[in-house]
Amino acid sequence: MTESSGLSIIGAGRGKPGGKCFRAFDPTANAAYGVEFHSASSSDIEHATTLAAAAAPAFARSAGAQRVILLESIANHIETALPSLIEIIPRETGLPEARVRNETARTCLQLRLFASVLRDGDWLDARIDHGDAARSPPKPDLRSMHRALGPVAVFGASNFPLAFSVAGGDTASALAAGCPVIVKAHPAHPGTSEIIGLAIQTAIRECGLDAGIFSLLFDAEHSVGTALVKHPVIQAVGFTGSQRGGRALLALAAQRKQPIPVYAEMGSVNPVFILPGALAARAETITDGLHASVMLACGQFCTSPGLLFAADGAGYDDMRARLKSLFAESNTATMLTPGIAEAYRHGIKALAQHPGVDVLAQRDSSGSQGGPALLETDAATLLAHPELAEEVFGPSTVLVRAESVAQLTKLAEHLDGQLTATVHAEVDELGNYATLLDVLQSRAGRVLFGGFPTGVEVNHAMIHGGPWPASSDSRSTSVGSAAILRWVRPVALQNFPDALLPPELQEKNPLRLRRLVDGKFSDVSIS
Amino acid sequence: MTESSGLSIIGAGRGKPGGKCFRAFDPTANAAYGVEFHSASSSDIEHATTLAAAAAPAFARSAGAQRVILLESIANHIETALPSLIEIIPRETGLPEARVRNETARTCLQLRLFASVLRDGDWLDARIDHGDAARSPPKPDLRSMHRALGPVAVFGASNFPLAFSVAGGDTASALAAGCPVIVKAHPAHPGTSEIIGLAIQTAIRECGLDAGIFSLLFDAEHSVGTALVKHPVIQAVGFTGSQRGGRALLALAAQRKQPIPVYAEMGSVNPVFILPGALAARAETITDGLHASVMLACGQFCTSPGLLFAADGAGYDDMRARLKSLFAESNTATMLTPGIAEAYRHGIKALAQHPGVDVLAQRDSSGSQGGPALLETDAATLLAHPELAEEVFGPSTVLVRAESVAQLTKLAEHLDGQLTATVHAEVDELGNYATLLDVLQSRAGRVLFGGFPTGVEVNHAMIHGGPWPASSDSRSTSVGSAAILRWVRPVALQNFPDALLPPELQEKNPLRLRRLVDGKFSDVSIS
Repeated sequence: MTESSGLSIIGAGRGKPGGKCFRAFDPTANAAYGVEFHSASSSDIEHATTLAAAAAPAFARSAGAQRVILLESIANHIETALPSLIEIIPRETGLPEARVRNETARTCLQLRLFASVLRDGDWLDARIDHGDAARSPPKPDLRSMHRALGPVAVFGASNFPLAFSVAGGDTASALAAGCPVIVKAHPAHPGTSEIIGLAIQTAIRECGLDAGIFSLLFDAEHSVGTALVKHPVIQAVGFTGSQRGGRALLALAAQRKQPIPVYAEMGSVNPVFILPGALAARAETITDGLHASVMLACGQFCTSPGLLFAADGAGYDDMRARLKSLFAESNTATMLTPGIAEAYRHGIKALAQHPGVDVLAQRDSSGSQGGPALLETDAATLLAHPELAEEVFGPSTVLVRAESVAQLTKLAEHLDGQLTATVHAEVDELGNYATLLDVLQSRAGRVLFGGFPTGVEVNHAMIHGGPWPASSDSRSTSVGSAAILRWVRPVALQNFPDALLPPELQEKNPLRLRRLVDGKFSDVSIS
Repeated sequence: MTESSGLSIIGAGRGKPGGKCFRAFDPTANAAYGVEFHSASSSDIEHATTLAAAAAPAFARSAGAQRVILLESIANHIETALPSLIEIIPRETGLPEARVRNETARTCLQLRLFASVLRDGDWLDARIDHGDAARSPPKPDLRSMHRALGPVAVFGASNFPLAFSVAGGDTASALAAGCPVIVKAHPAHPGTSEIIGLAIQTAIRECGLDAGIFSLLFDAEHSVGTALVKHPVIQAVGFTGSQRGGRALLALAAQRKQPIPVYAEMGSVNPVFILPGALAARAETITDGLHASVMLACGQFCTSPGLLFAADGAGYDDMRARLKSLFAESNTATMLTPGIAEAYRHGIKALAQHPGVDVLAQRDSSGSQGGPALLETDAATLLAHPELAEEVFGPSTVLVRAESVAQLTKLAEHLDGQLTATVHAEVDELGNYATLLDVLQSRAGRVLFGGFPTGVEVNHAMIHGGPWPASSDSRSTSVGSAAILRWVRPVALQNFPDALLPPELQEKNPLRLRRLVDGKFSDVSIS
C-alpha cells in the first residue's frame, strides 16, 4: 500500500496541510484508525476548481474512445489495489472482506459498463436533419448531440465505500460523459478514498489526459462540500445519502446565481405489499426473504424494505409470528459508524414510543452495533401519522396491518416517492387490485413483482431513483447505463461545414454511430 | 366563430364568473377589443387540478396510438378554426394575416410531429435486460421505459399566440407524453386562447378521452399562474417569456414541499460573430440579413440577434455604415402590446444613456409602436458592463467593436448562456479562432455557421434552449421532437409476469418498438 499523506488530491498533485484534521474510525475496534487527514483548504478548493474549469472544454470534446481507455484503466488500477482495499475497508467501515471483493467487482463493472456505453455511442442521441436550399424559406441543415455539462461535484456515500464513492457510479458516469469530477470524500472512509483517488490520478496520467479532470477533497465536516456546490465552476452535483443532506445541497444550489442540476438520491422505505394469495402459497419464502433482505449489510442499503403491508387475517398472523421469531433470533451487527448506529437507535426509539406502534422484537445494542428490530402498526395509525413511513436507516422494518385487501391500494396512494416498491401476489389475484401496480409505478422508480428490493443490478434497464423525496430528480437514475444522461445537455449545430463538425455528426459517419437521420435510425455512412 | 363566453375551460365544462375581468387590447387601433374575460377563481383552479389528478393515471398508461389520434384531431380542429384565427389574432396581437397562416401551419406541424414521435415509440427508451436464474445470486429480469410525470402547467407566451401558446409546443409535447395539461392563457390574446382551447376540448371529447386532461385558465394578472405552480397536483411547468417571469416561477417552485421541473425559456441576446474573411467576402449579404433578422416580427422573437461582434478595421466601418443606414430607413411597427412597446423604449433609453454606448440610428415611437434602433459600444465597455449584454425585446441590436479578431474569443467566453450563437466566417480563416466555435457550443443551445438565428425549424435535431439564463434547464429543448422528454421519468419493472407488463415491454414486442434488449438494439419480436 502506498504511504498515505492524508492530503487531498488536486489534479496531478496534492493539497496542502492546514485544513481541519480528522481520522477514520474503526467501528469494530471502536477506536480511531489510520493517519490524520487534512480537510481541503479554500486554496485547495480554488486550485481544484480552476484546474477543472481549464480542463473542461477539451475533455468535453475528447474522443469517446479516449474516455473508454480512461475508464478501463481506472478499473484495472482499482483491481490492482484490491489487497490494500481488503486491508483498509473492514477497518474503516466494519464491512467484511467478502463485501469488499463484491463491491470492488461491482465498481469495476460500472466503470466498464460506461466504457461500453461510450463504444456504442447511443448516449449521444446524434440527430441529423438535412437542409433543403430549394424550400422557401431555405431549410437549414441541423445536427444535434449531447455535450458534457462541465465540472461535476460528487459526494461519496458512507454505505458503499467503493460503488457509490470516489470511483462510484456518479464519478464513472460523469467522466464517461466528458465532465471533470471533483469528489468530496466521505469522512468515514478517507483511507479508502485516497487509494481510489490515487488509482484515478494514475490512470489519468497514463492516458495522457489533462490531470485537471479529477480532484479528491477531504472534509472533516461540511464546509468543503458547501463551497463546492456554491462554486460557479461546478455545473452539476451527484449525491447519495440522507434526506437531510440532500435537502441541504438543494438549498445551497438554489442560492446560486446560476441554478444547476442536483442529483440527490436520498433513500426510501421501499414498501412491500403482500397479497393474500401469495401469503397462502409461500408465506415462509416471503417471510424469510424479507427478513434476510432487511438484515443485509445491517440494513444499511437504500433499498432495504422498511414497510411491509398485508391484510389482517390468518395469513397475516402467521407471517407476523414467523417474522417476530426471526428478528428475535437475529444478532446485532457492526454498523458503518457510531453516528449511524446512534441515529438508528434514535429512530427505533421514536417509533417504539409512538402510541400506535408495537415493538414485536428488538435486540439491544450500543456503540457501533445495530440491533435488529421489528415493529408493527395498523393502517389507520400509519395514515394518520405519515412520519411512521419515514426511513430508519438500519436493520429494522415496520409491519403494517391493513383492515382489508381493498385498503392496500389506498395505503399505496398515500406513499411518498420511493426508490422501489414490491408486490408479492399470485397473478390471478391481481385482477382484484387492478390499480395497485399502476399506483406503485406512479410512486417508485422500480417496481418488483415478487423478490426483494435489495440487490441493485447494474445494467441498462435498471432505474435507481424515484419521485421526491426518494430522489431530487426523478427524471434520472444513479445506477445503470442511463446514469450518463444526467451530465449532458443537447447542442444543435446549424449549417456547419462538414469539416467543422465533430466526427459524431459528420456526413460520412466515421464512428459508425446509430443516428436519427431525417427521422429514421441509421447506423450506416450517409455518403 | 363560436360566441365567446369569456370563461375558463375546465375539463368538459367552463369556469364560473367571479374572478377579475379583463379585455384584450388591439395594439393597432390602440383600444380594448372583444368581450370581457373572467380570471379563473380559486374554485376553478381546484376544479381543474382535481380533474387533472383524476385523469392522470389512466392517461399515463393510455396507448400511444390513442394519443396520436388526439394530437391529429387537435391539429385538424385548429385548421378548421383558421378563419376565426385570421379574424381575431391581428386584432389581439397586431400580427398580420400571413403570420397567422404561417403560425397555424407550424402549430399543426408540431402537433403532427409529436404524433409521429408516438408512432415511432423511440421516445419511450424501452429497455429489457433478461434475467438469469442460474446466476448466483439470480439475475432478475428488468424492463424500463418512460412514464408521464403527471399534470403539467403550461404558460402561454405573448409573442407566439399559437405556436408557443395554448396548443403550442409545450402542450403538444406534454399531451404526447401522457400528461394532463392546464394552460394559463396569456392575457394579451384571450380570444385566440379560447378558440384553441375549445378546439382541444372538442378533440378530447371526440376521441373519447377523459376531459380532465385539459383545462384553460384565464388570468388578468399573476395569481392563477402562481396558484398553479404551487399546487401539489402540478408535476412540471412549461413557460416561455421574460427572465423576470421565469425567475418568479422558479422561486415559486422552490417554495414547494416537493420540487418539480420548471422549463422556462427566457430569451437571449443571440450573439453574432462576424470574422474578417466573411466580412470581406460578403459584407452586404451579412449586413442585410442581420438587419432583416432583427426586424422580423418587430424584433419580438426569442432568437432575435441583439449583439453583433466584429473586429475594428475597414470592413467594420463599412458594415457599420450600411447597418446605420438600414436602421435609419426602417419603419416603426406595431408591437404585441403597449406594455411591450413601453418596455422596449425603456430598454433602449437605458442603453442610450450609458456613457459607453452610441446611438447610431433610432426611430421615435409611441403607444404600441416600436421604433428600430441601432446602438454601438466597444469591447472594453461591454466587458466592464455586462448589463449591456442583456436582452432588449424589440427591433434593436448592439454593434460591438472589438479591438482585434483575437479578442472575439475572449468576448465569447464572457457571454451568459444563450439560445443561439452565430459565426460568420470563411472556413479557412477559422484555424485562427480554433476555440471560438467550441466556446460558443459551451454557451448556447444552437450554434449557427452563417445564416441568422431567427427561424426555428421544427424537427428532430432542433434544440431551442440553452445554459442559464437562456433557459432554466439546459438539458432540454422546447422546440423539436426531443421536447417530449421533458415530461417523463423512467420506471423499471422487475420480474413482472409478461401478462402484467405494458405492451411496450412485453416479450413478443406487439408494438414492434425499437428496444435495447440485453444491450443491443432490436425491433423484432423476442420470442
